[in-house]
Amino acid sequence: MSTTSRLVTSLATTEALAELFSDTAVLQAMLDVEAALARVEARLGVIPAGAGGAITASAKAEYFDTAEIARETLRTGTPAVPLVKALTLRVRDQDRAAAGFVHWGATSQDISDTALVLLLRRARVLLAGSQGRLDAALARLAADHAGTVMLGRTLMQPAPPVTFGLKAAGWLAALRRGWDRMEGAFEDALLPQFGGASGTLASLGDRGIEVAEALAAELELPCPEAPWHAHRDRLGWLVSACGVYIGSLAKMARDLALLMQHEVGEAAEPSGSGRGGSSTMPHKANPAGCAVALAAGYRLPGLVAGFLSAMPGEQERGLGGWHSEWPTMAGVIQTTGGAMESMAEAAEGLSVDRARMRANLEATRGVVFAERAATLLAARMGRDAAHRLLEEAVRRCAAEGRHLKDVLAGMPEIAGHPGAEGLRDLESPEAYLGSAEAFRVRLLEPEE
Amino acid sequence: MSTTSRLVTSLATTEALAELFSDTAVLQAMLDVEAALARVEARLGVIPAGAGGAITASAKAEYFDTAEIARETLRTGTPAVPLVKALTLRVRDQDRAAAGFVHWGATSQDISDTALVLLLRRARVLLAGSQGRLDAALARLAADHAGTVMLGRTLMQPAPPVTFGLKAAGWLAALRRGWDRMEGAFEDALLPQFGGASGTLASLGDRGIEVAEALAAELELPCPEAPWHAHRDRLGWLVSACGVYIGSLAKMARDLALLMQHEVGEAAEPSGSGRGGSSTMPHKANPAGCAVALAAGYRLPGLVAGFLSAMPGEQERGLGGWHSEWPTMAGVIQTTGGAMESMAEAAEGLSVDRARMRANLEATRGVVFAERAATLLAARMGRDAAHRLLEEAVRRCAAEGRHLKDVLAGMPEIAGHPGAEGLRDLESPEAYLGSAEAFRVRLLEPEE
Amino acid sequence: MSTTSRLVTSLATTEALAELFSDTAVLQAMLDVEAALARVEARLGVIPAGAGGAITASAKAEYFDTAEIARETLRTGTPAVPLVKALTLRVRDQDRAAAGFVHWGATSQDISDTALVLLLRRARVLLAGSQGRLDAALARLAADHAGTVMLGRTLMQPAPPVTFGLKAAGWLAALRRGWDRMEGAFEDALLPQFGGASGTLASLGDRGIEVAEALAAELELPCPEAPWHAHRDRLGWLVSACGVYIGSLAKMARDLALLMQHEVGEAAEPSGSGRGGSSTMPHKANPAGCAVALAAGYRLPGLVAGFLSAMPGEQERGLGGWHSEWPTMAGVIQTTGGAMESMAEAAEGLSVDRARMRANLEATRGVVFAERAATLLAARMGRDAAHRLLEEAVRRCAAEGRHLKDVLAGMPEIAGHPGAEGLRDLESPEAYLGSAEAFRVRLLEPEE
Amino acid sequence: MSTTSRLVTSLATTEALAELFSDTAVLQAMLDVEAALARVEARLGVIPAGAGGAITASAKAEYFDTAEIARETLRTGTPAVPLVKALTLRVRDQDRAAAGFVHWGATSQDISDTALVLLLRRARVLLAGSQGRLDAALARLAADHAGTVMLGRTLMQPAPPVTFGLKAAGWLAALRRGWDRMEGAFEDALLPQFGGASGTLASLGDRGIEVAEALAAELELPCPEAPWHAHRDRLGWLVSACGVYIGSLAKMARDLALLMQHEVGEAAEPSGSGRGGSSTMPHKANPAGCAVALAAGYRLPGLVAGFLSAMPGEQERGLGGWHSEWPTMAGVIQTTGGAMESMAEAAEGLSVDRARMRANLEATRGVVFAERAATLLAARMGRDAAHRLLEEAVRRCAAEGRHLKDVLAGMPEIAGHPGAEGLRDLESPEAYLGSAEAFRVRLLEPEE
Repeated sequence: MSTTSRLVTSLATTEALAELFSDTAVLQAMLDVEAALARVEARLGVIPAGAGGAITASAKAEYFDTAEIARETLRTGTPAVPLVKALTLRVRDQDRAAAGFVHWGATSQDISDTALVLLLRRARVLLAGSQGRLDAALARLAADHAGTVMLGRTLMQPAPPVTFGLKAAGWLAALRRGWDRMEGAFEDALLPQFGGASGTLASLGDRGIEVAEALAAELELPCPEAPWHAHRDRLGWLVSACGVYIGSLAKMARDLALLMQHEVGEAAEPSGSGRGGSSTMPHKANPAGCAVALAAGYRLPGLVAGFLSAMPGEQERGLGGWHSEWPTMAGVIQTTGGAMESMAEAAEGLSVDRARMRANLEATRGVVFAERAATLLAARMGRDAAHRLLEEAVRRCAAEGRHLKDVLAGMPEIAGHPGAEGLRDLESPEAYLGSAEAFRVRLLEPEE
Repeated sequence: MSTTSRLVTSLATTEALAELFSDTAVLQAMLDVEAALARVEARLGVIPAGAGGAITASAKAEYFDTAEIARETLRTGTPAVPLVKALTLRVRDQDRAAAGFVHWGATSQDISDTALVLLLRRARVLLAGSQGRLDAALARLAADHAGTVMLGRTLMQPAPPVTFGLKAAGWLAALRRGWDRMEGAFEDALLPQFGGASGTLASLGDRGIEVAEALAAELELPCPEAPWHAHRDRLGWLVSACGVYIGSLAKMARDLALLMQHEVGEAAEPSGSGRGGSSTMPHKANPAGCAVALAAGYRLPGLVAGFLSAMPGEQERGLGGWHSEWPTMAGVIQTTGGAMESMAEAAEGLSVDRARMRANLEATRGVVFAERAATLLAARMGRDAAHRLLEEAVRRCAAEGRHLKDVLAGMPEIAGHPGAEGLRDLESPEAYLGSAEAFRVRLLEPEE
Repeated sequence: MSTTSRLVTSLATTEALAELFSDTAVLQAMLDVEAALARVEARLGVIPAGAGGAITASAKAEYFDTAEIARETLRTGTPAVPLVKALTLRVRDQDRAAAGFVHWGATSQDISDTALVLLLRRARVLLAGSQGRLDAALARLAADHAGTVMLGRTLMQPAPPVTFGLKAAGWLAALRRGWDRMEGAFEDALLPQFGGASGTLASLGDRGIEVAEALAAELELPCPEAPWHAHRDRLGWLVSACGVYIGSLAKMARDLALLMQHEVGEAAEPSGSGRGGSSTMPHKANPAGCAVALAAGYRLPGLVAGFLSAMPGEQERGLGGWHSEWPTMAGVIQTTGGAMESMAEAAEGLSVDRARMRANLEATRGVVFAERAATLLAARMGRDAAHRLLEEAVRRCAAEGRHLKDVLAGMPEIAGHPGAEGLRDLESPEAYLGSAEAFRVRLLEPEE
Repeated sequence: MSTTSRLVTSLATTEALAELFSDTAVLQAMLDVEAALARVEARLGVIPAGAGGAITASAKAEYFDTAEIARETLRTGTPAVPLVKALTLRVRDQDRAAAGFVHWGATSQDISDTALVLLLRRARVLLAGSQGRLDAALARLAADHAGTVMLGRTLMQPAPPVTFGLKAAGWLAALRRGWDRMEGAFEDALLPQFGGASGTLASLGDRGIEVAEALAAELELPCPEAPWHAHRDRLGWLVSACGVYIGSLAKMARDLALLMQHEVGEAAEPSGSGRGGSSTMPHKANPAGCAVALAAGYRLPGLVAGFLSAMPGEQERGLGGWHSEWPTMAGVIQTTGGAMESMAEAAEGLSVDRARMRANLEATRGVVFAERAATLLAARMGRDAAHRLLEEAVRRCAAEGRHLKDVLAGMPEIAGHPGAEGLRDLESPEAYLGSAEAFRVRLLEPEE
């Protein structure tokens, strides 16, 4: 009865995140809200004392037919309408008097919104686990490779050297910033929604806020200053936070996938037990984790746009906007978490080939140090002259297959030049790392 | 085991469209491709004669464990890898010799892409049915209401009159154009994908095209000029066609929802059997169909963007781009079809309140004919003077609660004016419809 | 020479925000970075003492030909390359020795990124001004209309009453949250970028961080822990913050536009001096401010998506991703600010028609109190029975054009009912506002 | 006075496309519509005979102050209102009688929409020119490199060989399909909009269609069956066509950028005259054309989404939706055309390094032929056994740095095997191209 086969999203998310939005999970979350509401209202004397327990006892997903409820949803415009009907019938069977107090004071969107919040709270825990794995793995890589020199690459062309430690620290710092934003956005968004028909809790008379606060406490959530059903900015912020995070994660995946190319060969995702295998090509060890993260990088921005564009809902409860949110939100959370988990696995088992990194650097025959040479010479002969001279030298390196250092040594403009001395260790990457190590350290320091 | 509960998407799509991407449907589509391939290869003597039947006999969704295959997918990067493994095991049990010829010459993406095409072919039929309903219902409304006069509304403010027939004809013509585009895009995109590892069918030697053409024929699809796995433009075009169609459908929904407002009251979606009811407000007859279509209008553009942004895949098979497509495509098709079906139901049962339409028009006290009056007067007194005079007259209408006709009649600048004659039937909507009827007729004529 | 005529964006932004990204402003911002860099390097003795002043003296937009620089940009891939060339030529004319020290240690993206930050800092001030106006105007509306009763409207249908004060407080609270996020994102993103060729500041040897910190101080910005050119998350966060903010602002605009409909007539944007006029219809007073904000609501989500999808840039400097940012960022800032300014004007001059609000409420003939009646009766007769009874009563209201109160009074099931007492003031909106006032007050309280 | 400096978009578009939306061009396009309308109305006797010439004479962009009109636009909600006012004043100065007949029967959106169509018609010519260049350059590459063998690359890993001719043919076929769609969409969308206040041409009485057809003829455009101002699907389709086209173009750019990596070195964009240079690194020859196309690939999807999401405009003229279109449309056209032009330049001057292609293939030491070996052996030993054996062989290739052919030759399972014969030319790429050449030829054939 599932809308979308697990196969369809099997590339996007993990089993645990798939479960998060399963029939049972979603139904139970809505029932949990109804049950919590009944309990606090019974406790406060808003409904009869016995109704709380009776409703709670019936509020179990196993008692209900998701398919039937889903079928009704398209007609009623919200899953809460058929659910409340079914729950009421069930309660009536058990405790006739309590049945009239199901859903007391609430409206459909109160239930679906708060259920969503309960699901998001569980999502946060799963995502935090993945972030923890990523953080640990990247911190280790950043530490282990402080001195691992490699080519810088800008515009997909060789550039002066960096260290792999700096690169990993850059990934990690971006993901930490991204996770901080997600944590902040979860913190803001994890609020129950409880407003009744028009968002005034009118049917509870003057006891609305009392019930709202008790409901929040029962659900172990803070109570918002007012119902937020017509203002979706907190959810929009959470969705955006996922989008920005995935932007950084997909950047890491793109970097890794480029390093894993056969012609580059500087890194490799873990393989084994069929990971990243091919159905036809026995030789393949594919960047399977990167594929998932890059796929997320393609999908998330559009989902963020879909969410934001639905925000301008009409008056006290919009038409179509919030109706469009659930599949978007499920897609955002599942895709984000799936990508995090995949990249955590990739980072934890990442092989880094120091020798190949150095070899690739050397294979540029020193041209990536042209800037360095130009700077050394510029101080004496001016930047323009130095730049022109280096252009000529680089041209010769390419044409003659020689090292820059050697070409320069043979150029008469330089021969006797006092700056020529400095050119001796021109092609030593360690001598041209500038502040790489300092930046690496600063990136790993906790922001105060 | 479903990723996303039917509840999550229950507002977005119908049961039939949900089924389209169910575990069974998706798995069977992939198996159908494997089976068809085996049959044609056996027929052509590329694999042993018996292997075709043996593989076909095993290629039934019921024999396989979707959950297990889904679990493997995240590791292998494609559902075809674990499926081929499982299918091979099953065939081996039945016919040891045939097992080695499962998936012969194909690569994973050949299977998943062609399976997607088979699913899209089924989707097309469902969508065509909804379009047929919409077309019939709107054609009837456009015909019945050729003479139903109502307020034009521009920038959400009153404007000179139109007819409801013209409005319905406008909706219909846009949806017909949209459906033509979708039909064209389906026609283009419904092609099998068969290219093998690098898209050259190298493992089939010089028989690749022969097998490809036989496979296409077996699947009752045209054979493309070459494999298209690395060029997703035809699918992108189909997704875009859905996006544009939904733009037009959501426009119709927005119009209807505005007409259904209590203060306007000119139209109503069918109610009854719980359609559009409220969990708390017995008086509500909500625009439930419009909600679904508007929700689609919010969701589709982002999904289109997600699809398009994934198009620039790397070389002979990209990383992450096509991996991201399935959930997007399922979302696009399900959301499009769900909205079509909901609006078909709304259109078929639509109530139109002619009297209220006229009453709302009259309630503007003629100010929507200010343009008409200005035009009548402008010929004599110049457009500027007429415009200024009408601004003053309209101001008085508002201030004094009088009709424009009466205010104008009392203005000395007009009293003796020869154009004043024409102002007598100033507020007759029928006299100020211009080419409304001609446009209505032209909109309904089939484009040649 | 402008790419895009002011006419094209004249509906999207204000003159001041247009100026922000004018030829002169953009060019000067880049020159300001070059000049600041030269000054601090001269001060620190990294370049000759005189070069700082000489370069600063030449770094004036008026000396350069934007058209020429723009023409070169498409070839060189960045505006900084032709600008540095032109600046160097200019400096050489003035002070031959200094010319070699233009752009010392920097790379093109350092200049364009930091220039963008300088422009964003100016944007923030403009936007803060608009937010101040919006906040003041909405705070006043929320205070003035604490007791202004009006229809609640859910799913675009009548619902139990709210107050206009609550509605305005809801808008304001959302915009305050949105602005807080924007402020936070500006705070994070306003950092100079300075990394040199590979982001290691290698050409500055061991003095890189020293220069970076001095440059930040010179520009009156905090110094980031490391160059961020390859990690665009902070900018992505700012763009997202604008997207979420605009979602809330467009929600306010949609609400207002609905209230301004002729058939509703509860509010009006200020008119006068041609605001919202029509070229042909003298009677129109259009929601011109709402149009701008709604247009922003349509545009922003896609721009956010465009920005986020460009984040996964390759290695030490990506290809195409950051290249795509400037037009997106300019569009985001200009559209956001234009919408804020337009809505500030709308809010400041908003007319609210209390009488019409009450009249529209009364025109529902009490059916919006059906929930209230149901609740009152449910306590005695059970929720289901009450709900069914009310459905029947509401049906009669519609059919017979009578008030709910009167219909109910005539129903035998109720006549003798003890709950009937409570139905006497059933249709008094003030008696059915629940926690509206408490929520209004809580929404206006500053978050601690 | 420009909104957005040419510098901001200098990376996105060409000078000619920038000019297309310049102040003068946009203003003149609107004036051209007013003038054409006046001429045909004068000719048909709808307005005085002399007014056509008088209005045409005044309708010159140079007479008007774009800045002033832009300033008014934000207040009036459309540039046509202040323009009509200014034009009327100008006409009055020249021919008092004619002034009253400016804009006769039209509404603001008629002018702005039709002006947009005129601009799009000019855009089409520019884009067609770029497509012609791209087509010619790619057709030549596809022909020249029919026999140029290179590595296939799937998931960014080595795969069996392809030819560069096939790759180029694939790019070309996708761009041809894309351009056909754009041509079709231009054909559909290039229609004048003329509907008057409510889209009925009421102010022209029964002469509306006559004037509309004459106006279309005067503008050398087909006449639509009815006004389309409230139905933006044709423009949405054009925008989508650009989005899909750019998806294919960015795919070509991504492929090229990957081939241009130093470690791959199989292709190079033309350099010279500063193309793709660096401000600091003399050795760089950057993929500057690819950067522009990839940037377009990031930007377009969001712009498409922005356009589609604005389609559901309200009733006879929406609020905010169409208001948001101009900057989006300008961005789409300029970005598309800029990317086409950049890639045309890249394709025309592309260097292809046949030797490096072969060397990279050989550097895989035959592992990309593992599939071939497995197929050869599978026929005898079964697919599973062959697959397992090849996995082991590939492992040894990597571990021992040997060629697959040699490793296999030494494996006892194969030694005496009859399939071993076929392994002799295992690593000859020419022997394992399958249908590559046939596909290349079919891709280049014109679709019938």
